Amino acid sequence: MNIIANVRAQVPLIHCITNYVTVNDVANILLACGGSPIMADDAQEAAEMSSICNGTVINIGTLNARTVDSMITAGKKANELGHIVVLDPVGAGATTLRTETTFRLLNEIQFSVIRGNISEIKTVYQGSGTTKGVDADVSDTVTEKNLEEVITFAKQLSQKTGAIIAITGAIDIVADSTKAYVIRNGHAMMSKITGTGCMLTGMVAAYCAANPQNKLEATVAAVSAMGYCGEIAFAKTQKENSGTSSFRMHLIDAVSQLDDNTLLGGRNIESRE
Amino acid sequence: MNIIANVRAQVPLIHCITNYVTVNDVANILLACGGSPIMADDAQEAAEMSSICNGTVINIGTLNARTVDSMITAGKKANELGHIVVLDPVGAGATTLRTETTFRLLNEIQFSVIRGNISEIKTVYQGSGTTKGVDADVSDTVTEKNLEEVITFAKQLSQKTGAIIAITGAIDIVADSTKAYVIRNGHAMMSKITGTGCMLTGMVAAYCAANPQNKLEATVAAVSAMGYCGEIAFAKTQKENSGTSSFRMHLIDAVSQLDDNTLLGGRNIESRE
Amino acid sequence: MNIIANVRAQVPLIHCITNYVTVNDVANILLACGGSPIMADDAQEAAEMSSICNGTVINIGTLNARTVDSMITAGKKANELGHIVVLDPVGAGATTLRTETTFRLLNEIQFSVIRGNISEIKTVYQGSGTTKGVDADVSDTVTEKNLEEVITFAKQLSQKTGAIIAITGAIDIVADSTKAYVIRNGHAMMSKITGTGCMLTGMVAAYCAANPQNKLEATVAAVSAMGYCGEIAFAKTQKENSGTSSFRMHLIDAVSQLDDNTLLGGRNIESRE
Repeated sequence: MNIIANVRAQVPLIHCITNYVTVNDVANILLACGGSPIMADDAQEAAEMSSICNGTVINIGTLNARTVDSMITAGKKANELGHIVVLDPVGAGATTLRTETTFRLLNEIQFSVIRGNISEIKTVYQGSGTTKGVDADVSDTVTEKNLEEVITFAKQLSQKTGAIIAITGAIDIVADSTKAYVIRNGHAMMSKITGTGCMLTGMVAAYCAANPQNKLEATVAAVSAMGYCGEIAFAKTQKENSGTSSFRMHLIDAVSQLDDNTLLGGRNIESRE
Repeated sequence: MNIIANVRAQVPLIHCITNYVTVNDVANILLACGGSPIMADDAQEAAEMSSICNGTVINIGTLNARTVDSMITAGKKANELGHIVVLDPVGAGATTLRTETTFRLLNEIQFSVIRGNISEIKTVYQGSGTTKGVDADVSDTVTEKNLEEVITFAKQLSQKTGAIIAITGAIDIVADSTKAYVIRNGHAMMSKITGTGCMLTGMVAAYCAANPQNKLEATVAAVSAMGYCGEIAFAKTQKENSGTSSFRMHLIDAVSQLDDNTLLGGRNIESRE
Repeated sequence: MNIIANVRAQVPLIHCITNYVTVNDVANILLACGGSPIMADDAQEAAEMSSICNGTVINIGTLNARTVDSMITAGKKANELGHIVVLDPVGAGATTLRTETTFRLLNEIQFSVIRGNISEIKTVYQGSGTTKGVDADVSDTVTEKNLEEVITFAKQLSQKTGAIIAITGAIDIVADSTKAYVIRNGHAMMSKITGTGCMLTGMVAAYCAANPQNKLEATVAAVSAMGYCGEIAFAKTQKENSGTSSFRMHLIDAVSQLDDNTLLGGRNIESRE
């Protein structure tokens, strides 16, 4: 596997229109994983910035009327140029604005990858083309018990959207319309810091931009990399008996030190046709 | 005391309309103390977001016309639902916009707790209902010498606003209209990192949201917790001979590891009727 | 040399209208170096805030129509009062909006110092008064080979703008119209975290505000301090075999612990008349 090596060799430039809560973490994880971040959310430059980048991230974590327009123009430009575009529908389903913005983005932009937790992805499903009744009636937690069901749901959503679907949580699922991977890495402490989801979305964009012929594998690599680095970070945190802020530092450190071989040795992935 | 235990058990969701300087720290301290943060500052969703949360923080650190309207609608909705609403009047008194916004917020929203330094709180006093001449002529520093005077001032302000008043600095004072606590925890290094005030305001909201019957005690717990964790962090920083960024990490770490018993053993509080 | 001692003694208050990606780092480095940060980007208060500060930083990293107007009014007010004003033209040349905003800022504000990488500074050159044809045809990388040429370019730009010019990269150059310094400190890992440029710009403002009679020397001190602290941070990171997030912490730590004597012992500067 040379997915990470490709990122470090090509240093893909990723334009992020993202929330101001975790934007610094996203920039730092992009640098740590081998990419390069640039943030520009004014409608006057969003499309132009996307055009000089290798990938675009659209994250609705602190959306507002001004930035939604920028997301649309940036995403359309990236589509026009055949660039990677990744959606992180933060909080879709929680408020009308987030849900409707997610629907609008899905309607106007073709995403390469959509990454969210199960409830966000269920909202994405509602907004993706024709829904046959109450399709997305999967549970709001992914467990070993409902795994088959969620995999089927993810594949269907990939079919509907044309995007790779990454559902992250205690168990992660990455799927296109025909193939799915189940990833069992990570640690519960990842939910005790802000930004692990946003950071992962940034990494997915960088990994895909540097491996455009293998987007599914690149997404699986990014998701498993984040999870495995969470395990490494937890081990360090536990050893020194420190807390969540140390954990965050160790997490970004681990991403900055990761290579393909280490990831292959540490990740726990299962392929499901 | 089970104030912290309640936070960790209930995981109160806190909606923060706050500044972009320290927002990441606020999110991380909320997670560290046992709560959960969500940030949404667009007027289209601010009230809706507050309605699904357990508490709302309004922090004017980098206010602008767009977000002030969101603060108002979010605060009113929280009031309507009987939720905790905490005000952090960052820089009130420094510019006309901040002072007038503070007055407007005080006029339109009933706050559960108002937290600031002495000069910010003096500005709050000016904007709280009828001021009898130059009431707030206390000094701009709280010392052992003027402590009685500041306590009286804090109680009066609580009477006027109906909010618990937390004045933080080298010595902290938390008061309602009849009772005050003096807290002597913390370390000077806390003023050498940004965000300790904003983070504390977030913690106050989480502690109160999980202990709504004991808001005064919950606020005292949050203020003393932040101070005591500052002491723990300073001890670690000194031991390793590191600097202010290490201190920040140790501070958030300490909050993430704190429980009620540890706080009871470490805090230095004095009750003043 | 007592440049750093002056900063720590005077605690200059620096108003930053800056990007939301690295704003927290800028605030923390300002505190670490001995200054004090305040951020306010609304047009209603930007000028008023600048007027009560000792210096103003204008950083276009995530500019938008609303904040550009605030930059203009804040900069003009700072000019009116004879305060330090420092420009960080992040991404100038990358998009039309950034280039045109840079030109507008140069046209309306007299900067004390302009700090950027060589390609940003070349764009600044294009927008500074009358350009004699394709003046700024220096390379996009500063190397030992083209050093003379870049020094001449920097001096000319200082002549044109009336500002001290700081061009930072693997080799740093600080120049006014008659004198230049070459600084060979720093480490490549500084480019693997976000914000080193923005943080340095903040430090330049604090150093100059506390040493207004020696702005050139103060800028050299800030640039060499950041570079030398990068070396200290790298040594610690390497020793503990950690990654980029630890490096960031060590960098800010080092700035918080730095004094004039340590800097004199560690910096590598060369004067070129």
